[in-house]
Amino acid sequence: MSKVLVLGHKNPDTDTIASAIAYAYLKEKMGMDTEAVRLGEINNETAYALDKFGYGAPRLVSRVSEEVKQVILVDHNERQQSADDIQEVQVIEVVDHHRISNFETADPLYFRAEPVGCTATILLKLYKENSVEIPQEIAGLMLSAIISDSLLFKSPTCTDQDIQAAKELAEIAGVDAEDYGLAMLKAGADLSNKTLEELISLDSKEFEAAGKRFEVAQVNAIDTDDVMNRQKELEPLLERTIADKGLDLFVFVATDILNSNSTALVLGKEADTAAQAFRTELQDNRLEMPGVVSRKKQIIPVITEAFKG
Amino acid sequence: MSKVLVLGHKNPDTDTIASAIAYAYLKEKMGMDTEAVRLGEINNETAYALDKFGYGAPRLVSRVSEEVKQVILVDHNERQQSADDIQEVQVIEVVDHHRISNFETADPLYFRAEPVGCTATILLKLYKENSVEIPQEIAGLMLSAIISDSLLFKSPTCTDQDIQAAKELAEIAGVDAEDYGLAMLKAGADLSNKTLEELISLDSKEFEAAGKRFEVAQVNAIDTDDVMNRQKELEPLLERTIADKGLDLFVFVATDILNSNSTALVLGKEADTAAQAFRTELQDNRLEMPGVVSRKKQIIPVITEAFKG
Repeated sequence: MSKVLVLGHKNPDTDTIASAIAYAYLKEKMGMDTEAVRLGEINNETAYALDKFGYGAPRLVSRVSEEVKQVILVDHNERQQSADDIQEVQVIEVVDHHRISNFETADPLYFRAEPVGCTATILLKLYKENSVEIPQEIAGLMLSAIISDSLLFKSPTCTDQDIQAAKELAEIAGVDAEDYGLAMLKAGADLSNKTLEELISLDSKEFEAAGKRFEVAQVNAIDTDDVMNRQKELEPLLERTIADKGLDLFVFVATDILNSNSTALVLGKEADTAAQAFRTELQDNRLEMPGVVSRKKQIIPVITEAFKG
Repeated sequence: MSKVLVLGHKNPDTDTIASAIAYAYLKEKMGMDTEAVRLGEINNETAYALDKFGYGAPRLVSRVSEEVKQVILVDHNERQQSADDIQEVQVIEVVDHHRISNFETADPLYFRAEPVGCTATILLKLYKENSVEIPQEIAGLMLSAIISDSLLFKSPTCTDQDIQAAKELAEIAGVDAEDYGLAMLKAGADLSNKTLEELISLDSKEFEAAGKRFEVAQVNAIDTDDVMNRQKELEPLLERTIADKGLDLFVFVATDILNSNSTALVLGKEADTAAQAFRTELQDNRLEMPGVVSRKKQIIPVITEAFKG
């Protein structure tokens, strides 16, 4: 059988990288010829985790159809978040924990989505279901993914299953989840070496709803003022992205990982719709989002419903 | 928590009815308030299975949003195959073995699709994963579903997992799979009491690909001549359905369950495209399909690819 690439979403985060590695390894053990790849640069947080557990980053690609006929998607299913030429290959499996949208196949496939906080939590089940032992370093990466997606178990996306999975994985990895997790999140929240372009693209995802196209970028910070102090420089950059991509809305979210609040810059012709959806008004293009930390659970559904009217 | 309806597809077959019953029971045991419902009449084959295992048919509905806010889909995901008002409720889970198309959600959900021959085969795994015992009569219905979808293990959609699941379920149900299976298939292939309208709608599904809309109906027969002898009466009925629904193509397939061949009537403005996709030509609107028994694996992908060019 020819090789199958395992890939997470564009602007990869720790879950996407860790899950590509962990699932490629599992499928390899199950007899498939696989390789984990990535669709973008490794962020500071993921670099910290890879370094800690002594694992190299997957190979960087933007297209896949020249080298394989089949791929497996982890941590995403929407085609605009995937490889540029995803329509030209066959998706044979998906393991994900997001909404399902912009996804269709001609043939039946293995599609495993669960409403848990992290893809790695589902992968732990798949390791067990297939009786494959998890190597220590891969357990460490999977633990990192859960800590990242759940902001150390504080996000409303975090379920009991994620907490239980993290416990099991920490044991295999031989680390203390709380101590290691805080250090990893802090490494990821260090934005000092980031250009403005990186700030708005590091963890950014495009969405569609009711014919509207919008992008939501998110950065974690120890102090959101560090980010928002750069508002005057950020705005022209966001405006240019909106114009270049033909977006109706750009929401740039800075999340305070210690206090679990967010502040957003909201631009584009649907900015007021977005603000109203959060039952507030924009002040100088800013939106205060107390208690909001999860793009998936607290931002995307709110905007989607607003567009659908 | 308020009630959740568990529903299979329109024009229900044995897998859709059995899976709705079996999954509603499992979720009930896991603490959810559920009710299995159906979106159409029970066919002869399913009636035989329900009678054999002493189970009543689920309640008939066409809409769901007046009575519940949330539903679980089994054995389908495409919205045109679901309840008429499926867009007005939240789909919280899907268990299926078909391609994914025309399906999207605002929120993450539990979506379990596997490329096996029957939804009941996946449900057997879910019973095990959740350590719930399968009652004898439900095991019998699940076995019936596998026999039906696999044409007694002869369809190319049938996997080793389906055969293994059927073996386990036959043991719990206390029947011989081969003897019982052939009797059930024969009951289903008895078309003598069917009107022409019933013949073309009993097991019919609508699809979309590349902007084209097409419907593929399938009946099982001991002798396909019994069906094809009615061609002159069937054609005006198919033409009317095409006009009423604005279809580009209608494929009516009669499958010889003993010899594993099919003959189809192919009508609509894309009829020649369909015939070419099967590398043959229509003779008097008929298409001979030697070795073809599976709509899902041997018909839908072929037509879909042809439309996508």
